[in-house]
Parts: sequence; C-alpha cells; structure tokens
Amino acid sequence: MASKGLLEQFINSPAAAKLGVPQGYPLRRYKQGEPLLHGPVVVGGNGRLIEQLTTLLEGPYKLLKAEADTKRAGIVFDATSLSKPEELEQLYSFFHPQLKKVLDNARIVVIGTTPELIDDADARITARSLEGFTRSLAKEMRKSATVQLVYVDPSIDGSNIDKVESTVRFLLSGKSAYVDAQVIRITPADVVLPKDWDKPLEGRLAVVTGAARGIGATIAETLARDGAKVICVDIPQAGEGLAETANKVKGTALPLDVTDPKAAEEIIKHAQDRYGRKIDVIVHNAGVTRDKLLVNMDEGRWNMVQNINLVAPVRITEALLEADAFAENPSIIGVSSMAGIAGNRGQTNYATTKAGVVGFVDALAEKIAALGGSINAVAPGFIETDMTAAMPFGPREVGRRLNSLNQGGHPIDVAEAVAYFSAPSSTAVNGNTVRVCGQNLLGA
Amino acid sequence: MASKGLLEQFINSPAAAKLGVPQGYPLRRYKQGEPLLHGPVVVGGNGRLIEQLTTLLEGPYKLLKAEADTKRAGIVFDATSLSKPEELEQLYSFFHPQLKKVLDNARIVVIGTTPELIDDADARITARSLEGFTRSLAKEMRKSATVQLVYVDPSIDGSNIDKVESTVRFLLSGKSAYVDAQVIRITPADVVLPKDWDKPLEGRLAVVTGAARGIGATIAETLARDGAKVICVDIPQAGEGLAETANKVKGTALPLDVTDPKAAEEIIKHAQDRYGRKIDVIVHNAGVTRDKLLVNMDEGRWNMVQNINLVAPVRITEALLEADAFAENPSIIGVSSMAGIAGNRGQTNYATTKAGVVGFVDALAEKIAALGGSINAVAPGFIETDMTAAMPFGPREVGRRLNSLNQGGHPIDVAEAVAYFSAPSSTAVNGNTVRVCGQNLLGA
Repeated sequence: MASKGLLEQFINSPAAAKLGVPQGYPLRRYKQGEPLLHGPVVVGGNGRLIEQLTTLLEGPYKLLKAEADTKRAGIVFDATSLSKPEELEQLYSFFHPQLKKVLDNARIVVIGTTPELIDDADARITARSLEGFTRSLAKEMRKSATVQLVYVDPSIDGSNIDKVESTVRFLLSGKSAYVDAQVIRITPADVVLPKDWDKPLEGRLAVVTGAARGIGATIAETLARDGAKVICVDIPQAGEGLAETANKVKGTALPLDVTDPKAAEEIIKHAQDRYGRKIDVIVHNAGVTRDKLLVNMDEGRWNMVQNINLVAPVRITEALLEADAFAENPSIIGVSSMAGIAGNRGQTNYATTKAGVVGFVDALAEKIAALGGSINAVAPGFIETDMTAAMPFGPREVGRRLNSLNQGGHPIDVAEAVAYFSAPSSTAVNGNTVRVCGQNLLGA
Repeated sequence: MASKGLLEQFINSPAAAKLGVPQGYPLRRYKQGEPLLHGPVVVGGNGRLIEQLTTLLEGPYKLLKAEADTKRAGIVFDATSLSKPEELEQLYSFFHPQLKKVLDNARIVVIGTTPELIDDADARITARSLEGFTRSLAKEMRKSATVQLVYVDPSIDGSNIDKVESTVRFLLSGKSAYVDAQVIRITPADVVLPKDWDKPLEGRLAVVTGAARGIGATIAETLARDGAKVICVDIPQAGEGLAETANKVKGTALPLDVTDPKAAEEIIKHAQDRYGRKIDVIVHNAGVTRDKLLVNMDEGRWNMVQNINLVAPVRITEALLEADAFAENPSIIGVSSMAGIAGNRGQTNYATTKAGVVGFVDALAEKIAALGGSINAVAPGFIETDMTAAMPFGPREVGRRLNSLNQGGHPIDVAEAVAYFSAPSSTAVNGNTVRVCGQNLLGA
C-alpha cells in the first residue's frame, strides 16, 4: 500500500474524520493463541438452550452477570422462549440496559428458532421479528461491535448443544470481525467436535481453487493454520503464485483450469497420488469478472464468467459426488457475492453466476447432509484486494465506507468464514449463504 | 408542496441535473381507461408457458416480434425451459439485442420456475441464477424502465395460465411504476378472473386501517376505484380525515383503535350492520414510528410501536379467522417496510414489527390458501408523504435518490400493489412480501 496517493492518505486520516468522513474503528481480528474475546460474556434470556449454552460458554469465556457494571465483550441472548409478539418486549428489557456496557468490537448474538420450521403461527411470527431487531441494532452499534442472529432447528434443545458450538465460537471471536447483521441457520445434523479447538481442521484434506493469490491464497493459509492439508489449484498461467501459496501452506500445487471437463478427475487423482485419500473440503473460490453493461457486452464476456464462476463449481462437485470422491463429513464451500444478492450495474454476467452459487448451496444441501457433510457459501462485500485497490478513487472510498463498520474487509475475513464452514464441527451449519460485508448497505 | 425551499427546488431542477445530481425520469403511472402500456410487447423464450402466455398477452397488448425494430414498452421472457447453468447463455442471446430497442418506462418480466420447488439440482441452480440477472439488469435500465422476476410453481403450465394473469397485468403496466427488481412467487391456487379488468375488485368488501390520511387514504381510494366497497378505519382522534376518506370513496367510516381487544368484533359488527356481509379484504396499514436509538429508548416507545404495528394485525386477523368473518377468497395484506428487511438505525422497535409482518405473511399463507385466499405484504421504500416531507433536507434528498429510479415513490404506488394483492384474480399470489421501493439500494 506504499503507492497510496496523498488524497487517499488524507481521506483515511483522523483529520478527515474531524471533517465528518466516517472512519471505521479498527477491527480486532483473531490471533491464534489469544483468547477468543477481549472481555467477559453475558448470557441472557430464558429459552430452551440457556442452561447448556451457559455451560458451553463457561469453557472458552469468562461469564458475567447481566446486571454487572463491568464492560462486556460478548452478549448472547437466548430468545427461543419468545412465542408471541407481545413477548418481544423482552428484547427491549434485556438489551436496553446492556448497551451502555459494551466494549469496542463487542459481539452480540441472538438465538431464535428457525421460523419456517415452527408450526405455531404466533411463535413463527415472533421468531421472524428477531431479524428486524438484530439488523437494526447492528446499525446502531459503535466501535465495530457486531450483532448476529442464529436460528436453530426446533429439535435442537439443550441436550444437543454441540451443534451450536462452532457457530457460537466463530461469532463470539475476532474470526467474524467483518461479519455483521447476518442470519445463520443450524440444522439438527450430527457434528464432530475437534480434540483441539485451535486445530479444528486437523486431519482434513482441502482443495482450494483460485489459490494463487488474493482471497484464495488467504483461504489456503487459513485452512492450513487450522490443521488442514491443502491442495492449491489455479490455472497453469498462475504457476508462480500457486507454487508460492503451496509452499507457504506446506501443501501441494495442482495447476488446472477449473473449466476443463477433466478437472474433477485430476483433483481426485492428485488427492490419491499425493495424499492417498479422499477429499474432505472443497472451496470453489476461482472466479472472474468481465464487467460491461449488457447492452454493450460481447458473448465471450458472458460465457467466460458463466463457465468459470458457476458451471465449473457445479460440474466439479457433481463429478466428485458421482465418483464417490468425498470422505466422511465433507464440506463444500461456494463463493457468492454481494452482486449475486443485490445485483450490480455492469455485472449481469457475474451476478447471474453469484446468484447461481446461492442456488447451488440450496440445491445440494440435502444431498450433502445425507453424506454427513455440509454445503455453504460466503458472499463477500467490499474486500481490500489488488482488484479493489485498482478501483478509481471515488467509488473505492465510497464503497469502503458503505457499511456499518465504515471500512473494507480483508481477505482473512472471508477466509475465517470459509474455515468455519470447513470443520466437522460445523456440519450442522448447512445451506447457508453468509455475507462477509460489515453489513454493507447494499442489498436485495 | 408550495412550501418547498429554494434549495429543494434547485436540487430537483434540470440545472442540478447538469451538475450531476441524479434526477429520476418521470414515471408513467396507470390511468384508468388508458392502455396498460404505451407501446408493444415482445414475448421471448421457449419455456412451457410460452404459447398460452402469448395468447394471454394478445388480449390487452399489441405484440411485436423480437427482431422488429419498433421500440417496445414491454418484454416478457419465459425462462422456464432453462434447466442447466450452461443454458443461461439464452438470457444473453435474447436480451442483448433487445436493450437498444426499449421505450422509457419499459417493463421487463422474466418468468422462471420457483427454485425451491424444483427437484433437479441443475434446474434449481439455473432458476435461482435468474435473480442475479434481473436485479443487475434493473440497475442498468434507463428512463425508469423496470425489471422483475416471476417464479411460478412447477405445476403451472400453459393449461392454467390464468393464475399468472393478474401478475402479468400488474407488472406490464403503470401500476407497478415504482416496483423494481422484485421477485414474485405464484402458487397453483385457484383464481377467479374478473368480468371487467378495470373493476377487478367489483363486489368485494374491504377494510383499510389507518385510512384517515397518507398511504392509507390512497389505498382506500384505489380499492374503491377498482370496484370495492371500503370500510375506512382509523383512531377516533383522526375522525375528520377519516370521514373525508370515507366520503371520497363512498364507503363508511369506523373510528376504532386497532389495539382495542374488541377491534375485530367491532369490524365484524360494522360489516354486518352496514353491508350485511362478511369481509373480503383487510389491509393492515395502520402503523406508527417512534424512533430512538435502543440505548436511549423508553419502554413506552417500544411497546406502542409493537402493539400498533404487529400485535394488532396479528390479533385482529386471528380473531376474524376464529369468528369465520372472512368471505370466500379473502385477501389479507400487511404493510412491512424497508426497515423490516434491512434494519434501520434508530428503529429497532419499528423494524422488529416490520420483520414480524414478513413472518405474519409466511406463517398464515397456508391457512389462508385453504380458505381460497391469499396473504401478502408490501414493503414501501422512500414514499413521498407528509412524513418524508418533514425530514431534514439532506437525508431526504439522499433517501429519495438512493434507488434505481432516482426518485421517491408516491402513495399510489403502494396502493396499486395492495389493489393487485386484493383481487380474487390474485389468490395464487400468496406469501409474498413485495417491495415498492424503486429498487432501493438499501437491503439485507
């Protein structure tokens, strides 16, 4: 970033802040070996999970009574007991006195029951209301505090709280620093908890496409940090970057065009030849943009984006499934985008594929669950990469700030979400598309 | 609007446009008696509906061949045949040459099959991709042209095209002028087509709450225009405005606090005493805001908003259902909000209720379908009312323009969507929350 212009330096400076240019408060990101949070956690509500949730949290966190005056870094509210709209008042009673006592980068998590799985109309309406509450509260928090909503299957009660643990640990940590105002749904599928929560991917073999640079390289590094062996895939022309990533993560490089009809076959062969095993994780990160207004777009731009971003992940996954190439509890991760959710001018081609990735996750969730695994997607917002650094000054500075955290995310923020999805402890997290966007204001 | 300040006059003037302030292109709204569109319609695609869709459109519209050079006011593309990602190329091939030939205020509608009801993974992914395409194309259109996506149940084929007719007529007309980039799902429920499409609510008895002024008054007028008898409800303190609306629509006034436990009873009695019949339509429009950051909010502000905006519609509807007070094919309409979808700073109370309205629609859809009726919600974006006129200049002018049509909507735009939901021809449109927001950039 040495090449930053003077104007860019200024606009991101305290002087500009005094002139009213919004400056994001620094994000506390996760560092391995450090505690998950920088302060105690308050647990509230009287839902069906509260007892076992409290026990679960006592391990990794220091708990605090709701009434205490000590500042808190985490708040968890079990709202699963709210069963009619009149009871939403409990949200007010609990949260109103909490808000003066939160630390910077605090993590607030509300837990409810998945609305569409509730039979009783009143309870379903009430559960759905939580989304308006958490999304609004996220917009009110200061100093990079975040608010999330976790919906759990009606069959999840205290006795199987293990299904919720990886999600709670992700959300109540710096790993989710740039995830804000998201809704995550948890199914009753079995999970396998790790021996060591610092190595949740120990023993897993992961494939990351587009791993030569940028977000893909960071994903490879993060999966390796968490204990996975990583096969780094990228096009042959990216050989140098690919070798660099592979060396860094002590993995292997597989130069491969994902649109090659033999791509899946080569991945299987590589996994077999080099690791003598099946694949646990695949991250379909390879993707391109070829922006043009549709009225001016040539067919090449349309087709190239379709083939790399959507057709390839679908065809590779189907071929891996058909060849029985996945190990037990596989994790499949797609990369969607804000553009796929909200649409974007100049990106009809790209947004079509990124909405398709949402469909990919929806369409395969049941099938992958039957294998004991999960399929989810991340949808990045404004992430600081070479691509965004090359944007014109104005749109870049606006884009950066157009979110509740008033700053762009980093590749590590996307990678942390991918790592969370990739663990056997997260197999109950299935069929989700989670935005990593700091609650970007743009939306559907 | 005589009180507009000079600065406001300027910022909305052609001079400001020359300085780069985005000015919305005037919306062509529907006028009874005029043709639905101001030019011909092109029908494309080779899905399962194409033949009967073409026949249906021949009635109200002049059809045009896709290759013709004449400018078109409407384009309908039947994408139900696209069954694998590779076939999305047909979107490009069809639309690319169309875009130079559209009139101002053109209406583009893409029709696909409801993704979550498709068994085949490839077909489901492909159907879901359409959403990224239409949302992006909507952002590229100029001169207030709009783009929508209609998902039809897999069981809807050409033989029951009547289920789609009210939606196509709404979307291919000035009635949907401020609806942009929306997704509407159509179920296979029976519909009753009107004798006269200019009077689609003929013979219906409608209740509109909050009808004394603003959007509620316009809804009452619009339902009356379409042939309904209207019971206008508002709090006793709003008596004068209420009487005015009731007179204007040749309906009756029912002064009533919707939070009164006897509200439903009084509505039933009024309908019986004054019209000797059951209720066909209820529009839960009454609502209030009491904005404050949650940290500064008193309990009164929280509870008042909950009780009026969410508890009242839920309790009244449940009581009407329990008393068997609905006629055949009832239509229930909730009013959600952008804030309920995206969250809003200072509106934790309001957004909780407006997300709850989305849940209300979801929760009751099946039950209302069993009565031959439907329940849906509108979610207004920036609508020009006394409330928005009272906003501070800066936020108002930004809010107005922060959408693909670069302008605020009018109460009539919300009312037209409500009227569309209220018709017996729309009973197959069930469980939808449709934003009336000009594709407001804010979102979830």
